[in-house]
Amino acid sequence: MDADEFRRCGKEMVDFVADYLENIRDRRVFPSVQPGYLRQLIPDQAPEDGERWEDVFKDIERVIMPGVTHWHSPQFHAYYPTANSYPAIVADILSDSIGCIGFSWASSPACTELEVVVMDWLGKMLDLPEEFLSGSGGYGGGVIQSTASEATLVALLSARVREINNFKKAKPDIKVENGVIMSKFVAYCSEQSHSSVERAGLIASIKMRALPTDEDCSLRGQTLQDAIDEDRANGLIPIFVCATLGTTNSCAFDNVLEVGAVCNKEGIWMHIDAAYAGSAFICPEFRPLLDGVQYAESFNFNPHKWLNVNFDCSAMWVKNSYLLSEAFNVDPLYLKHENQGKMPDYRHWHIPLGRRFRSLKLWFVLRMYGQKGLQECIRKDVRLAHEFEELVKSDDRFEIFGKVVMGLVCFRLKKSNEINEKLLKEINTDGRIHMVPAKVKDIYFLRLAICASRSNSGDVTFAWKVIQEVTEKL
Amino acid sequence: MDADEFRRCGKEMVDFVADYLENIRDRRVFPSVQPGYLRQLIPDQAPEDGERWEDVFKDIERVIMPGVTHWHSPQFHAYYPTANSYPAIVADILSDSIGCIGFSWASSPACTELEVVVMDWLGKMLDLPEEFLSGSGGYGGGVIQSTASEATLVALLSARVREINNFKKAKPDIKVENGVIMSKFVAYCSEQSHSSVERAGLIASIKMRALPTDEDCSLRGQTLQDAIDEDRANGLIPIFVCATLGTTNSCAFDNVLEVGAVCNKEGIWMHIDAAYAGSAFICPEFRPLLDGVQYAESFNFNPHKWLNVNFDCSAMWVKNSYLLSEAFNVDPLYLKHENQGKMPDYRHWHIPLGRRFRSLKLWFVLRMYGQKGLQECIRKDVRLAHEFEELVKSDDRFEIFGKVVMGLVCFRLKKSNEINEKLLKEINTDGRIHMVPAKVKDIYFLRLAICASRSNSGDVTFAWKVIQEVTEKL
Repeated sequence: MDADEFRRCGKEMVDFVADYLENIRDRRVFPSVQPGYLRQLIPDQAPEDGERWEDVFKDIERVIMPGVTHWHSPQFHAYYPTANSYPAIVADILSDSIGCIGFSWASSPACTELEVVVMDWLGKMLDLPEEFLSGSGGYGGGVIQSTASEATLVALLSARVREINNFKKAKPDIKVENGVIMSKFVAYCSEQSHSSVERAGLIASIKMRALPTDEDCSLRGQTLQDAIDEDRANGLIPIFVCATLGTTNSCAFDNVLEVGAVCNKEGIWMHIDAAYAGSAFICPEFRPLLDGVQYAESFNFNPHKWLNVNFDCSAMWVKNSYLLSEAFNVDPLYLKHENQGKMPDYRHWHIPLGRRFRSLKLWFVLRMYGQKGLQECIRKDVRLAHEFEELVKSDDRFEIFGKVVMGLVCFRLKKSNEINEKLLKEINTDGRIHMVPAKVKDIYFLRLAICASRSNSGDVTFAWKVIQEVTEKL
Repeated sequence: MDADEFRRCGKEMVDFVADYLENIRDRRVFPSVQPGYLRQLIPDQAPEDGERWEDVFKDIERVIMPGVTHWHSPQFHAYYPTANSYPAIVADILSDSIGCIGFSWASSPACTELEVVVMDWLGKMLDLPEEFLSGSGGYGGGVIQSTASEATLVALLSARVREINNFKKAKPDIKVENGVIMSKFVAYCSEQSHSSVERAGLIASIKMRALPTDEDCSLRGQTLQDAIDEDRANGLIPIFVCATLGTTNSCAFDNVLEVGAVCNKEGIWMHIDAAYAGSAFICPEFRPLLDGVQYAESFNFNPHKWLNVNFDCSAMWVKNSYLLSEAFNVDPLYLKHENQGKMPDYRHWHIPLGRRFRSLKLWFVLRMYGQKGLQECIRKDVRLAHEFEELVKSDDRFEIFGKVVMGLVCFRLKKSNEINEKLLKEINTDGRIHMVPAKVKDIYFLRLAICASRSNSGDVTFAWKVIQEVTEKL
């Protein structure tokens, strides 16, 4: 494909994309294919000679689309949203073509510097404490990670290194292996935390205790304090807490004011995972939910979920970036450069070495929507969630689980878990809308998340109509 | 930005990209900006109201381009290449707009299934043993990771879990913490391995011994055997070897036939990191360098380096995918689905949970170039490297370091390290070409990598002319 062909095919793809997204309602949201469907549709090896663009292009509809779960359909209400916007797509075309690998400042200064500044922009939109901003003159700053899973892991690994060093400093005469020290460490999350937190514990080989929550599925300070006291009495060393703002199960919020105060008193690293809900904190009316972030050592949310920036763009801030670097700093000659230390070398801030120019899409989105435009997107989704909540409440057969705070409504038939399981299964088999369930404190419920940027009141009414119809049949 | 504006702006960006890449020779390959340049060029916060596309677009040249290191300039000879091709860019537009998150089969079946099949295609192109292919009916298969760093880490973590389980099975009566067991584990790489291997050891908290290499910078079987014997005698448990095919320093090749045989005899997981050189194994004349892969438990290379697939696309194969899953398997209700087990749920194969539809770009590239077209790209680069090698050899002041096997030429003035350091510094200050150095066995040398797909004989001659001119001035 030469430049002229690219101009033609690239534009054809742009039109295809616009057509796809504008007409996405016409497609069945959840595919009806069976596992293994695709292998039968294409050859079993790569062609010897290059194929024509036309043949590749037509296979998008023939091979790919029948197996796509359409996350951007207004009938998609599963998981949480993943963002998708035209400005982000356009920025990604640019990012792909510059195609630099921004592991150090020198490897492409613009890649590092735009990220530093735009993460400050975003931090200010969230009204993060100054210490988290790189422009504050301290050691803080933001970095774009791939996923919230990685942000949690990076925070835990950094806490681990800090505490190993503290242990060795406190007992310089004792020769002991890191693994032996680590076996004394304990970290905490709530029983409502995302599976990635448990996974971070597995990878870092740190015991991760999932603590019980209160009736609102919120981790409270006293629960944490009790666990710490118990563990210390048993000779363990508490090092890390992952608090969640907006759990995946039911969008519950840990009490980070209480939890953070305990962490600070006990000298424990608090990481806040606000993967989904964090985007909403750009609206002043939701910002109080973030109070307590001043106690956190690190904070993370995913603009690629609910802030119109395509995956992957997980925004993480730390108060002291040297604590991250300590966990990863390995510095061979071929990566050294003259300007080390003046700007961050982001390779020391995360697990992979290579990294794309991801700040471009964040920059394009912040500029083309503006703060007000993004706030309006958040408010629209929350409004739709409350509209759906009212529909559920108007039907005596159903009840709401938890509280509707953001764009997620948890609800169930006032019946057994089994009947609710059956209802969910039938809804997904029906195929007009798509949802996933969750189970909290042994109560199974359905989750309706407002996911697509194109969702409107009509879509919410439609979803409710489908749910009612399937319920009638049950 | 509505659909009509996207059609217009997206196409404008496609043209910009074509212009940028076709005229990239006109730009200074390495930017002359100083650290902190960018913050002065843009506001210190995001705009309240959305901005016009025209204003965002014109900032690409004003703000971004002055700070870009142009990795796709034929004057870029630093590090190793990162791939960039039109078919991959077009595929990424599609991937962005579908915007699914393929963590499970159900989350978007096409995303998982295309990856399974296309990784088989690629595995066949490399003539990998059947066991690595998912179509073989065994437990093997391929997965796209973000980076080689993550592939190494995933392999090491999987070996760690396997050996912890083995330890516990062998001594069921002893109650011992994982950390204590891990403190007995030891893994190996060569002193020439990439820094990411050392880093994987830090993250996994496994001792990573860097073993000496022979005069060709190759790790040999006997060296490994001696280390294993020594460590076993000291009560350690060897669990993992990372062998490298094509080191970053000098593109040296470990002897995987010897190393693999030792690993198999000793029951140790061999992972092969062929991040850069792996792409060349699609050419029959280079395939013998991969002999010994039959001994590996896992193998990885980066199509995003040298196979025309834009970052990120790091291809990893394993013989037994259950060994990966064991390290990561955490399965909450909201991620469960009816068809589990019939196709891979790739979230159990890597560190992040979320994942883009990356197989699309691999598929587009394999189809539009064809196997022959990709082979020709590899051969062209190797030919250019040999042309440059001849130029160096024709000048008595210089010597080649190591052997030129792929697209990398290591060379130096027959003088002190200090003078070579000065030469490299002056070349980069001159700014017409860009290179980075390396140091092996205390010998400092310059690395000229053929990086850009547009590189031709004239570019190699030009680079040599610049080097000679700067040498004259020295």
